[in-house]
Amino acid sequence: MKFHDIKNIVIIGTGNVATHIARALSNAGFTISQVYGRNVREAKRLSDEVNSIFTIDTDNIIPDADLYILAITESAITSVLETIPQHNNLIVHTAGSIHMDVLKAYSENFGVLYPLQTFSKKDVINFSDIPFCIEANSQENLESLINLAKSISDDVREVNSEERKLLHLAAVFACNFPNFLYTIAEDILNKKGIRFDILLPLIKKTTEKIYTLSPGDVQTGPAQRKDQETIRKHMALLENIPEYKEIYRLLSEAIIKNK
Amino acid sequence: MKFHDIKNIVIIGTGNVATHIARALSNAGFTISQVYGRNVREAKRLSDEVNSIFTIDTDNIIPDADLYILAITESAITSVLETIPQHNNLIVHTAGSIHMDVLKAYSENFGVLYPLQTFSKKDVINFSDIPFCIEANSQENLESLINLAKSISDDVREVNSEERKLLHLAAVFACNFPNFLYTIAEDILNKKGIRFDILLPLIKKTTEKIYTLSPGDVQTGPAQRKDQETIRKHMALLENIPEYKEIYRLLSEAIIKNK
Repeated sequence: MKFHDIKNIVIIGTGNVATHIARALSNAGFTISQVYGRNVREAKRLSDEVNSIFTIDTDNIIPDADLYILAITESAITSVLETIPQHNNLIVHTAGSIHMDVLKAYSENFGVLYPLQTFSKKDVINFSDIPFCIEANSQENLESLINLAKSISDDVREVNSEERKLLHLAAVFACNFPNFLYTIAEDILNKKGIRFDILLPLIKKTTEKIYTLSPGDVQTGPAQRKDQETIRKHMALLENIPEYKEIYRLLSEAIIKNK
Repeated sequence: MKFHDIKNIVIIGTGNVATHIARALSNAGFTISQVYGRNVREAKRLSDEVNSIFTIDTDNIIPDADLYILAITESAITSVLETIPQHNNLIVHTAGSIHMDVLKAYSENFGVLYPLQTFSKKDVINFSDIPFCIEANSQENLESLINLAKSISDDVREVNSEERKLLHLAAVFACNFPNFLYTIAEDILNKKGIRFDILLPLIKKTTEKIYTLSPGDVQTGPAQRKDQETIRKHMALLENIPEYKEIYRLLSEAIIKNK
């Protein structure tokens, strides 16, 4: 079965994921036919960038695009979907934790295009090494989406909704939580006038190691050594920041238990 | 005042820090005169590598080196110090959370040489961009140590014991804890047969961002969006791993509170 060739795309959403995906697909030669967004300024900004028209009214979403990409925050997906006219064209969402089947009621052709990456609007994103997790309701749609994703990424994988949920959860542990711990480290240093950048070589090395070794095999630090004296000293330094102290305690205990 | 030129060095310890520092100093042209270690095999291994003699008896530590580097685990420093004959040559430790003054009883010349990095024995370490935090009991010793450190690193800083303690604490948040969170992410994925390496581009991007932006400004994820529905789903996925669930809960709450 030959996959359906996608040419014209409607982007629903104007946030970080919508912006980066629209940009990448436009650069790869796809036609972005329309951008939908609730906010005029944002919808205009993105549509200008990808040479498309825009609308802020879901009733005006054009009916004849080959693909509709719903790239909006997870908690808004259901409510936005309810305002979109039903059709039979291919519609996908880009969310980690939303089951593909929420799209069933809106089209006979649906799927998921989940880029496993963290997007900030101002960031320059090179999509080529970003894993794209693809799911679809039929083999034909799967092939269409894989083909599309391969035009912007070298790492395209078929991932079902259950696996995708776990990937999203793992990504929170691997990206969102470490970034928050960097924020704590920065705060601890800034309070004493020390600049955060002194930690950058350490952070770089920590993440370089896990390209070749399992993180479980390269754990270091006071908790890994069961160095209770240092742990006690660190907890004492955090006496006045109970929130940080509790995080230090919980993570240290977990590392010791995990040894 | 001209600093005292360090030529001959005794390395006390055979662990990760001792190994990497001995190797780097030897490569930079210093003479490693002796390696002391409790374990014959380890002491021989390191002394072979840096062309020195070794001993497993603190009484046999040679008395006339220019510098003694105590590179052993923090909790063992006091007990090892007690077995070392007193002398007036320069002695330093390499620990983050130990005050410089613990060395006072063993020599009139003492200091600290703290490399802010995580060391695994099998790792190849390029010292040039590792921040070296230097402290000494006199201006002369400070200059000797700065001069030594500059021969292996481009980032040598004067850091007192109080600042060093905070740097060590911040390093736990920026390195040890994130690595443990990677271990959790790997465990979550491996349980379902998904390979951890799918997360590497995400981890790479997360740490690249903070080279130019403050981590507090690039926080993403469900907690940052106050997306309670996704948080609830993730907690449900962790129902059978209460340890991970508690870490997820605590860090998510802290991110929401920190917004």
